[in-house]
Amino acid sequence: MTQLLSKLQWRYATKKYDASKRIPQDKLERIIEAIRLAPTSSGLQPFELLVINNPELRGKIQAVAYGQGQVTEASHLLVLAAWEDMSADRINMMFDLTNSERGTVNPDWEAYRQVLLSKHAGQDTEANFQFAARQAYIGLGLGVVAAAFEEVDATPMEGFDPAGLDELLGLPARRLRSVSMLALGYREPAGDWLAGLKKVRRARENFVIEMA
Amino acid sequence: MTQLLSKLQWRYATKKYDASKRIPQDKLERIIEAIRLAPTSSGLQPFELLVINNPELRGKIQAVAYGQGQVTEASHLLVLAAWEDMSADRINMMFDLTNSERGTVNPDWEAYRQVLLSKHAGQDTEANFQFAARQAYIGLGLGVVAAAFEEVDATPMEGFDPAGLDELLGLPARRLRSVSMLALGYREPAGDWLAGLKKVRRARENFVIEMA
Repeated sequence: MTQLLSKLQWRYATKKYDASKRIPQDKLERIIEAIRLAPTSSGLQPFELLVINNPELRGKIQAVAYGQGQVTEASHLLVLAAWEDMSADRINMMFDLTNSERGTVNPDWEAYRQVLLSKHAGQDTEANFQFAARQAYIGLGLGVVAAAFEEVDATPMEGFDPAGLDELLGLPARRLRSVSMLALGYREPAGDWLAGLKKVRRARENFVIEMA
Repeated sequence: MTQLLSKLQWRYATKKYDASKRIPQDKLERIIEAIRLAPTSSGLQPFELLVINNPELRGKIQAVAYGQGQVTEASHLLVLAAWEDMSADRINMMFDLTNSERGTVNPDWEAYRQVLLSKHAGQDTEANFQFAARQAYIGLGLGVVAAAFEEVDATPMEGFDPAGLDELLGLPARRLRSVSMLALGYREPAGDWLAGLKKVRRARENFVIEMA
């Protein structure tokens, strides 16, 4: 088995963390870096990553997340928040950054900027948000993989009230909407009902459709 | 730099493939396996993976994908298709599979089944589809990572007419909707405008918000 597949087999959505154990900062930074490097449609990176360390805030988040223990017991809590809309200023920001980083202004690339500006201006806010949210999930997946490579346990979490979380984190003022959380830390297997259970996936023949 | 970060730096959304080069089957299988192992909300895996080998079909797909060359020139073309709805039969299928694989029926887990059945029955089809589509993007991210580990080039692609692609692939009859494609193969750098350009991402300080 390759290292990647072995890491994917090792990981599981941790239900109980050892609250006494902290992730070293260098491991956290590499997990964040993997999320930052995640591919996104047209390279727009239409999401941001919140790192929540404040214990009081973590307690309030737990209250809008069905009281789930991971929110306060994990070493770190990340929140992935998508752009609430694909606004022209943000699209232009990413194209301008690309031009600046590459030191070139390319006519084809500039034409593509206009295509994206038109596309997103022609879609309603909800469709643009759903587009952004999907991209954030690529980042979520990469965060889970990166944690596994760091031998850090992780829990991707959707069980929370998004509007309540947005309010707690002041996301409307940042024009962001929360889409998922990622708890990071070290498992406490004795208290974790899922830790010893078999990982279940549909068999390849019930998951893959081949059109030859 | 860790191996994962190095792989993420190596990869890019390949624009031009060498049509003469094919991915060995074992590499393709490991990429598929990584997607199959992708974490999803409540383990529901609400998407399926199509492997398109038929050249004639690839030509038709290209016609609904803005004529993009990767569709026909890449070695392999995958399509990620999300469940069009979170129907009770599919949710039950995954809970039944889990019980069968683990050889247990747990009252808490059965109660959770009812929670999910109620939740998705109480949401409209579009909300359920958007939920499923996001999960598929976790799989998309893992496919990109897995390809990089196999030193296979990859292009996540959203530039196509989803309804047109669904029709070509017979997805409505399978109660699926296409959300993204993943071309896989080997780059042809001489014909690829993006191959030599710097990878651009927002700096950490413009991507990460710390709430200490």
